[in-house]
Amino acid sequence: MHRHISEQYELELSHIRDSLMEMGGLVEQQVMNACTALIEHDSALAEQVRELESRLNQFEISLDDQCVSIIAKRQPTASDLRRVVSVMKVITDLERIGDEADRIAKMAIRLTGTEMPSHQYSDFREMQKDVILMLHQSLDAFARLDTEGAIRVIRSDEDIDNAYNALIRRCTEAMRDNSEEVEAAVSVMWAGRALERIGDHAKNIGEYVIYQVKGTDVRHGADSNAEPDAD
Amino acid sequence: MHRHISEQYELELSHIRDSLMEMGGLVEQQVMNACTALIEHDSALAEQVRELESRLNQFEISLDDQCVSIIAKRQPTASDLRRVVSVMKVITDLERIGDEADRIAKMAIRLTGTEMPSHQYSDFREMQKDVILMLHQSLDAFARLDTEGAIRVIRSDEDIDNAYNALIRRCTEAMRDNSEEVEAAVSVMWAGRALERIGDHAKNIGEYVIYQVKGTDVRHGADSNAEPDAD
Repeated sequence: MHRHISEQYELELSHIRDSLMEMGGLVEQQVMNACTALIEHDSALAEQVRELESRLNQFEISLDDQCVSIIAKRQPTASDLRRVVSVMKVITDLERIGDEADRIAKMAIRLTGTEMPSHQYSDFREMQKDVILMLHQSLDAFARLDTEGAIRVIRSDEDIDNAYNALIRRCTEAMRDNSEEVEAAVSVMWAGRALERIGDHAKNIGEYVIYQVKGTDVRHGADSNAEPDAD
Repeated sequence: MHRHISEQYELELSHIRDSLMEMGGLVEQQVMNACTALIEHDSALAEQVRELESRLNQFEISLDDQCVSIIAKRQPTASDLRRVVSVMKVITDLERIGDEADRIAKMAIRLTGTEMPSHQYSDFREMQKDVILMLHQSLDAFARLDTEGAIRVIRSDEDIDNAYNALIRRCTEAMRDNSEEVEAAVSVMWAGRALERIGDHAKNIGEYVIYQVKGTDVRHGADSNAEPDAD
């Protein structure tokens, strides 16, 4: 009987984890499209990102429901409970990453039609590549319960923060030097901030991998002290 | 026997809720102090906010632990489970509000010693009063399971978003008109953005009151459509 319940639990949890990975794939796509829309002044692509945001909200509500119901029905304890709690935490982070992608898409729409100094795009372009890679690696570590990969993700957040600080510095200089650039530079700053937040969420996902596997809470630990000046 | 377990559950959950309210009180104080530090150029107060942030992180980890352990030990179902899940969600929001207070404190430190155009402070001053009130009301609604209060909180987020848009507009104008004000205006913009996010988290807390009492998920619903242009 106990074995039967445990098999049911594994089956249901693995179904939830599959849906979570599907949500993760959609979130990655949203971030990539939002960044491409901004860099390439593609407002149609940005609109598409904005329209898809509601699908992520649906994912969040439905997955949260499934987690609550698996806890209620199967009453997991110890590491089984930790696994479903981690999923619940990651759902929230993925949904928030979707919100940030939506913010980047808004900035992309606002920037369409303006002319941008090429150096500002180059900061954003570099930063988005690193953030998208970090997000991908965090989801990969979560899918494979790979704690070493998770630690690498947590550490790479510092590089993102440095890139973000450089972007803010450059935008501030551009605004000081040329008042006509103020509005465009503000939009690039908001988009950069959204990328920096996506990095924070990817780091959270890395931390939940470790919590799940080792049962230790590494949030706010020694690896979490890197903070951007500009923030 | 069942009654005994249920009494134990109530006792433990009420202990967790008390700690959550204590964390909420500390978070409110942090937001108030960070805003006062910014408005009054009080860098000592801002430093104090930054030092206290680690206490909030401790609260988060310890409360999360208590929630996981009450689920594992007492195996609550239905509305009992919803109550502890809401607490877990609110913990995350409170900790994130603490992060935003820390960001405002950073900006307060950066602004110390600069001279600010009085109109920029007046936007921030108005906005912080409304956000602090909204946060207080959301915690109050959570403590008293007051769904009507929660609905008022959810609706007031729209006013915060409007105030935020006005602040951003005014800062952008100030930067366009006077390049010497760029750095200060950017700091006020970041602080305003932090306030806007605190409003979002207070709204989340309001939504968890309704989820807890009525069992319906009102996130991303009809009341959640107000979005700031500048965001």
